[in-house]
Amino acid sequence: MSGILPSYLRDTWWTPDASDEVTEVRDASTGEIVARVGTAGIDVAGVLEHARTVGQRSLGALTFHERAVLLKQFALALSERKEELYDLSMRSGSTRRDSLSDIDGGIGVLFTYSSKGRRELPNAKVMVDGPIEPLSKDGSFLGEHVFTRLPGVAVQINAFNFPMWGSLEKFAPAFLAGVPTVVKPATPTAYVAEAWVRILVEADLLPEGSLQLVSGRLPGVLDHLRLGDLVGFTGSASTASHLRTHPGVESGDVRFTSETDSINASVLGPDARPGTPEFDAYISQLMVEMTTKAGQKCTAIRRAIVPRGLSRDVAEALEAKIAARVVIGDPRAEGVTMGPVVSLSQRDDVRAQVARLQDAGGELLVGSTDAPQVVRADGTVGEAADGAFLSPMLLAFADPTTPEAHQLEAFGPVASLLEYDSIADAADLVARGGGSLVTSVVTHDQDVAVELLTRIGAYNGRVLFLSRENARTSTGHGAPVPHLVHGGPGRAGGGEELGGIRSVLHHMQRTAVQGSPDVLTAISGVWHAGAAHRAEGAHPFRKSLADLRIGDAVESASRTVTLGDIETFAEFTGDTFYAHMDEESAAANPFFPGRVAHGYLLVSWAAGLFVDPDPGPVLANYGLENLRFVTPVSPGDEIRVALTAKQITPRETDDYGEVRWDAVIRNQDDAIVATYDVLTLVAKTTGASAVSEMVGAR
Amino acid sequence: MSGILPSYLRDTWWTPDASDEVTEVRDASTGEIVARVGTAGIDVAGVLEHARTVGQRSLGALTFHERAVLLKQFALALSERKEELYDLSMRSGSTRRDSLSDIDGGIGVLFTYSSKGRRELPNAKVMVDGPIEPLSKDGSFLGEHVFTRLPGVAVQINAFNFPMWGSLEKFAPAFLAGVPTVVKPATPTAYVAEAWVRILVEADLLPEGSLQLVSGRLPGVLDHLRLGDLVGFTGSASTASHLRTHPGVESGDVRFTSETDSINASVLGPDARPGTPEFDAYISQLMVEMTTKAGQKCTAIRRAIVPRGLSRDVAEALEAKIAARVVIGDPRAEGVTMGPVVSLSQRDDVRAQVARLQDAGGELLVGSTDAPQVVRADGTVGEAADGAFLSPMLLAFADPTTPEAHQLEAFGPVASLLEYDSIADAADLVARGGGSLVTSVVTHDQDVAVELLTRIGAYNGRVLFLSRENARTSTGHGAPVPHLVHGGPGRAGGGEELGGIRSVLHHMQRTAVQGSPDVLTAISGVWHAGAAHRAEGAHPFRKSLADLRIGDAVESASRTVTLGDIETFAEFTGDTFYAHMDEESAAANPFFPGRVAHGYLLVSWAAGLFVDPDPGPVLANYGLENLRFVTPVSPGDEIRVALTAKQITPRETDDYGEVRWDAVIRNQDDAIVATYDVLTLVAKTTGASAVSEMVGAR
Repeated sequence: MSGILPSYLRDTWWTPDASDEVTEVRDASTGEIVARVGTAGIDVAGVLEHARTVGQRSLGALTFHERAVLLKQFALALSERKEELYDLSMRSGSTRRDSLSDIDGGIGVLFTYSSKGRRELPNAKVMVDGPIEPLSKDGSFLGEHVFTRLPGVAVQINAFNFPMWGSLEKFAPAFLAGVPTVVKPATPTAYVAEAWVRILVEADLLPEGSLQLVSGRLPGVLDHLRLGDLVGFTGSASTASHLRTHPGVESGDVRFTSETDSINASVLGPDARPGTPEFDAYISQLMVEMTTKAGQKCTAIRRAIVPRGLSRDVAEALEAKIAARVVIGDPRAEGVTMGPVVSLSQRDDVRAQVARLQDAGGELLVGSTDAPQVVRADGTVGEAADGAFLSPMLLAFADPTTPEAHQLEAFGPVASLLEYDSIADAADLVARGGGSLVTSVVTHDQDVAVELLTRIGAYNGRVLFLSRENARTSTGHGAPVPHLVHGGPGRAGGGEELGGIRSVLHHMQRTAVQGSPDVLTAISGVWHAGAAHRAEGAHPFRKSLADLRIGDAVESASRTVTLGDIETFAEFTGDTFYAHMDEESAAANPFFPGRVAHGYLLVSWAAGLFVDPDPGPVLANYGLENLRFVTPVSPGDEIRVALTAKQITPRETDDYGEVRWDAVIRNQDDAIVATYDVLTLVAKTTGASAVSEMVGAR
Repeated sequence: MSGILPSYLRDTWWTPDASDEVTEVRDASTGEIVARVGTAGIDVAGVLEHARTVGQRSLGALTFHERAVLLKQFALALSERKEELYDLSMRSGSTRRDSLSDIDGGIGVLFTYSSKGRRELPNAKVMVDGPIEPLSKDGSFLGEHVFTRLPGVAVQINAFNFPMWGSLEKFAPAFLAGVPTVVKPATPTAYVAEAWVRILVEADLLPEGSLQLVSGRLPGVLDHLRLGDLVGFTGSASTASHLRTHPGVESGDVRFTSETDSINASVLGPDARPGTPEFDAYISQLMVEMTTKAGQKCTAIRRAIVPRGLSRDVAEALEAKIAARVVIGDPRAEGVTMGPVVSLSQRDDVRAQVARLQDAGGELLVGSTDAPQVVRADGTVGEAADGAFLSPMLLAFADPTTPEAHQLEAFGPVASLLEYDSIADAADLVARGGGSLVTSVVTHDQDVAVELLTRIGAYNGRVLFLSRENARTSTGHGAPVPHLVHGGPGRAGGGEELGGIRSVLHHMQRTAVQGSPDVLTAISGVWHAGAAHRAEGAHPFRKSLADLRIGDAVESASRTVTLGDIETFAEFTGDTFYAHMDEESAAANPFFPGRVAHGYLLVSWAAGLFVDPDPGPVLANYGLENLRFVTPVSPGDEIRVALTAKQITPRETDDYGEVRWDAVIRNQDDAIVATYDVLTLVAKTTGASAVSEMVGAR
């Protein structure tokens, strides 16, 4: 037993034999040793090959929905043992509220991807992207785009500040895509990452090879990567830049995405004068962003951009808010709202950057670089020499274009204060950050919002607009949500993480596929017009998911529409639109030959023509999509409908699934009258027992 | 007059004063001088700044649809003067059929983007991406993604082989996105690019600063680029790799996309034995791909991958097809089907690469490296010492894993022949290309198609499946279509061009926007639930596009549904599904409390409740989208509907436009019964004159 933090490699725990090349990690508040981290002698190539073979095989056996169900189980397993993770995280300086974003936030990412995976992806292994493109007049040659998973491994290099959320927000989309992960946490908080991986391993939920953890260095890992592999990096812009120069990345073979700390801005709108709810919301948000995680967030506000003349008001209001709300100390002490930064060396870095900002003209309006009085774990108050504590600091710059204010980052509770004259000026200041993860704008003026977004959109991965309407419900400037893209252009790394299914697709290759309707049907699992279909035999509504196949169809008899039908329908529904009721006006309409049948009449009749009325596996029609009326139907015309099973999506955790049907209504001349998709719920098996089970489960 | 090919800079023609640093370009068949190319003294920074200021301003004043209409006018102007372009292109060695892909293909890209721009983009300046994400329970805080255009310039560096298509396929999406272009054609065919730009300039259609042409070098251009600018490169993998090492690109500030020649494969399926239609289709396609543009296509087939033992059959069939169909010579001579490569130095390069392939074990089964007999412009036959002519050449490799066969490119009429044993083996050979623009698979076996796509998708930008069904209708292995992505992973450059609107979005920044429904409505131009709406005053169906505003609404009275109504509707439509007709069975269904109203009854009644029946600006309901039935409606329930103008899309070239309405049906408890979008056509102005004009225009 070397006493070194274990790694989880090739589905087993591993620690290095040698205890040289080990880094000692200390408690941020007390300086006590928490862990020893090292990976001397690790077989990097073997780790990657395990992912590419065993991991690819086990994940490749699962559909998107099966992987999504596992993500939920991971989330539940972590939720059960959340307290252990909270306790560990305090050692890194995280308060309980800080851990809300890291631990609960990380678990939340798993839940969101589980839910989105099942709602927004097919229960299949490939994903169709965008519409079908007809490429020949006779329909024999079509094109469309299909995503297939990358055949390699996702190497995820994380930052120290969010050891759980930061790794789970990369792992969840990779897992859902079917790409195995190698997680490399940052050394200062590697023990937290080890803890969540251990919980999943102990819960025995991980498919073989799908997740490996490297608690320490991965020497030369880029030399071992190739086409089909990915690197996801979170950290400093300079390290990202260095990684990009590696030949494997530079050649474009290895997909590289980075999310780097950026000099994010928060703009106070010209309307948001002191005394308005927006001014208060601005100050509250600024205080929260400066003090959460002691300002160690890549999304934190680094630049407060305010109307000319408001610097003093903002600084005074911020100082008052900090005095009222912020208690600095050991996170284990009652009442503490802001912990230390992660280490003494991190504290010294922050002080050095503040000194550079001061040299560039920054005037400290709030806070100081002196060691603050803090609450110790035992409740006593005083200095803590071995703790990495800092006060929140706000520096004002007389010249808002000072380059250092837009380029230097003090990765702690530090922000700069800059004044603007016009909206264009404010936008110019935002852009001087060279690309940001997020900018927030606090305004109650929609014109300000629109003009600013037009000017700063291209410089930001996310823009948050805050006003009195949502000051309480906002998820916050600094909080990425899994539904929305996290990442930004330029200085922010140029990457896109999260954003719902978008980041799943970053682990897949989009390929344009051309071929016949039959081939595209076979590849995509979605029936294409022109592909083989079977309208003989049993009505498809009599088939459960166990029997129903893509292409099973019903072709109805014809029914003639009379003027009487149109009038009956108009009277019954109240829809007496002139195109149905007034021959002269209807004929004057550019789209109708005269009085025509209601579109709703046509789809209602079509249902009457294709439905099989008796109880059976088809449980409900829950919707309809992409309805287009193509040819008007005049009295005397005949209509008939063809309904073909287009896509079958069994639900993993229900006794039924979704069936999408292709519906085409034609007239007596074979012209297309209307096309649409009918959405139904269909039982997995036939018979009363299945239905009654479902009723029982409600 | 320096006699140097002009550049089009800052909206005027420019030629260098000095005539040093000039390259002479010669006719590929005869060696005569065609043009002198040079840009000594060009003001690179000034060119870029003109685009970023004047070009951004003029394009920024237009909506997507206005830009799309201009693209169609560009296409029409070029179509009118197509013969000039054909004649010029012959000098580069292009036959008339070659020019079909370059000149007609280039014009086709403009038509496609004009059409797709108007059908698939809003008539606005920003584009919403994906669904709205509710981020608070009370609906006051939402998120969604919005694309805004990049604020810089698109520098497009093109290859010599498609001087027109190659530049237009980059220009069209940039223009549609609203980003100004600087085109830098390759020197050997710069005179063709000059010609198409000249035609557009003479037609006086180009918005100021939207297009500049640099006929020659752009020294140090990357040093002048910054965040918000893009580089689109087509050419060799080594040049692409060199450009990627530039600090501006490496930092991620400058978006860089590349499309490089790759070692594309064509797989003959195991079922496609000699004598099958697939075998013939394979040979025909191989012949076409080797000889079109004399094989100078980045998408050409370089590797023919065939079942073990079929090499001789393939080689013999190819030789016979070439003998029957290929006539090499000056494109100006009658009957010539294959011209020279672009220059003598290109010819020498190809010969050198063939020699390397031979050294690696390649055996020439078809063709030879000797100078071929050719048809001269005057119709005589013989050698042409000053022409860059080559024969089609096929080299067989006994070892199909020979690295040179997968890595070396002879950019001319040259392909390698490799045998495989199993589908997995064939897929492995395809992957050895290290990433390709396209692979074609010729098979009549769907299982082969599915298995191959699963294995090779991640290595290809495009995969084409050919069989007897579409041998005649296929657009061809080597032909990118504007609807589908062009580009591929790894060796193919890692970029994505074309793909319809996808490449427009590559010129825009996707930003996650968070805020209140009102702010998101103002930014996106699309009404969001919860935003301000106006249900007072005139019925919105009485308003033309001139008067109608986003948020104009109608809220209907309530109507009670009775059992009699349900039965009447069932009888009228024939839809006697048990959930409407049989209390006991309906109650046993897991989703219904008992008999419920038909979904179609509800939407039909809703139309009756919201419609304003008299003739007016609303011309037609042409469709319906995203209908979801949320709460079942039982006899005795009341329903009412709210209809709100959600999105207004005036058509640029019609007297009407599209209005999308948000429809919500609620019951007496305020629970949502159904939600959907109603799609209508609405006149731009009120009154009979507008309608009768439209009728006249039919």
